[in-house]
Amino acid sequence: MLCPCVEAHAVRPAPPLPAAVAQDLARVEARLAEELLSREERLSAVAGHLVRAGGKRVRPTLVLLVFHAAAAGKLARRDDAIEAAVALELIHSATLLHDDIIDGGETRRGRPSALRTFGVADTLVAGDFLFSRAFALCARFEAEVIRWAAEACVSLTEGEILQSRFRRNPAVTLADYLEIIRRKTAALFEAGARTAAHLAGARPEIVAAMAACGHHVGLAFQARDDLLDVAGNPALTGKPRGIDLRDGNPSLPIVLALRADPGLAELFVRDGLATAEVEAGLARIGRTGVLGAVAERVREHVRAACLEIRRLHPSRDRDALEALAAGLAARPA
Amino acid sequence: MLCPCVEAHAVRPAPPLPAAVAQDLARVEARLAEELLSREERLSAVAGHLVRAGGKRVRPTLVLLVFHAAAAGKLARRDDAIEAAVALELIHSATLLHDDIIDGGETRRGRPSALRTFGVADTLVAGDFLFSRAFALCARFEAEVIRWAAEACVSLTEGEILQSRFRRNPAVTLADYLEIIRRKTAALFEAGARTAAHLAGARPEIVAAMAACGHHVGLAFQARDDLLDVAGNPALTGKPRGIDLRDGNPSLPIVLALRADPGLAELFVRDGLATAEVEAGLARIGRTGVLGAVAERVREHVRAACLEIRRLHPSRDRDALEALAAGLAARPA
Repeated sequence: MLCPCVEAHAVRPAPPLPAAVAQDLARVEARLAEELLSREERLSAVAGHLVRAGGKRVRPTLVLLVFHAAAAGKLARRDDAIEAAVALELIHSATLLHDDIIDGGETRRGRPSALRTFGVADTLVAGDFLFSRAFALCARFEAEVIRWAAEACVSLTEGEILQSRFRRNPAVTLADYLEIIRRKTAALFEAGARTAAHLAGARPEIVAAMAACGHHVGLAFQARDDLLDVAGNPALTGKPRGIDLRDGNPSLPIVLALRADPGLAELFVRDGLATAEVEAGLARIGRTGVLGAVAERVREHVRAACLEIRRLHPSRDRDALEALAAGLAARPA
Repeated sequence: MLCPCVEAHAVRPAPPLPAAVAQDLARVEARLAEELLSREERLSAVAGHLVRAGGKRVRPTLVLLVFHAAAAGKLARRDDAIEAAVALELIHSATLLHDDIIDGGETRRGRPSALRTFGVADTLVAGDFLFSRAFALCARFEAEVIRWAAEACVSLTEGEILQSRFRRNPAVTLADYLEIIRRKTAALFEAGARTAAHLAGARPEIVAAMAACGHHVGLAFQARDDLLDVAGNPALTGKPRGIDLRDGNPSLPIVLALRADPGLAELFVRDGLATAEVEAGLARIGRTGVLGAVAERVREHVRAACLEIRRLHPSRDRDALEALAAGLAARPA
């Protein structure tokens, strides 16, 4: 059974953000632009190529919504919440730059990747630069907040390695997949939501609930991203379909489809698939019927996130946070 | 004129470290081993390949010597000094892993580099892992210490980019060279020495003096390293000679030699020099007579470092710190 929030939001577009959150998100954007500045124009250019290309700013939005929803008007640490949101987006951007080097990614956010545009060396250094900027920005925080951020960064690297162990490896299981995305995606969402609730001055059980909320939103977000890679509209997602199959990444549809149709392994293990082969592979994944199961998993994580969100006092900010989570379960673009 | 400390140490091997410093250095080594541990064995293997290969631990030694020399027996923050030394070595190791990707480095510390052994992807992620570990470790420190470390990291990336702007570019000047090594080498030495004096509870003018000391030790260290790349003994340095010329890196001997013998530019701009050409280039650099000027520059920075060190109260720790600096001005191996 769908949780009421999923049903409510799946049929209509996400409502606009509460004014204070929208204001803070605009400040995050301005602060991000400041953090890209460097004595070396080239660094600003490479980092800006990615960061200024937009992106959905899902992580900063989550941080700000959790902060406002958990603060219930006590906004003493509003500036800190904005800085935490900036730091998280910088870390995320650094990992995107490095991921493109690892995967040889040619396209990102609908245009040629930094790797393609600026080459390996400058893309690598620009990732380190963004990471260092985030590190500097975290100096203002208390030890536990810094530790949450840094440990999420450690998780990201361990997730990357775990994923590479299962690249083009048809023995990958659902448990392997879940561990990869816990480390690669959910850890940063969880650290962000935990930090936001802590900065809001919430009680420990609410901080833990928001961490769990971030975890589930991260898992829902990643599973939805995996689904879009198979069934999304490139004009809306800004990237071609089938990247996971082409790169041999064990995405959720692929992991489930390998079980339903073991013959798919032949495509999954092969390097250098032609576009027509990728398209044929995607169609074959679709025919296994796993896409419904993937969508159901997204909804499950959204429901779990909503249960945590409901522990907060009712407010417009809480509604908006629920809408963010529920929006992930809406029909993919 | 040589400063007395340089003359005293140039003719005999460096004295052993004071017992407390040697103990702390052993603890740094043990803590480094702990920080390499990961849920992903592969990360421990890649990071350990570099970190366990030894290295001179110059940065941790400098941090510990400055701490003990400036603390004058008040060792309340001894554990913090050890952790700062570990963090610095982790950051340095992360940059070595990433530098090898940027330069295509095949050899490091006398054996095949991590890049050569484990490939680009895992080497890149292992660098990020070490960097994240350093970030986590810094959580225990006050904001200013974290900012010094993070700003040194930003400098490192800006130095890398500046260096790449002058790669194989014979227009490089001495001023360009100095700015590159200020950012790429001296910034981390300076941050380490500043942090150590701060943790020792030293007065602000002593903290500033130790930062200046770190700066000069860093510059001396790099210029000496540049000299060893031209005139060192590979059996002792653990790496082949001529890497800078082969990679087109504007090292101090190259920058000075390009002025004395403009014809050298022809070798400096060329990619893919044969070993014989590199050796011929090194001999040609030697014939310009610039190596004496490079050695003199090393001595100048050692003298400047020693002047700062002399601001500390006399002690065995201070003597050992002076010996570390002076050792850089001894005849290259």
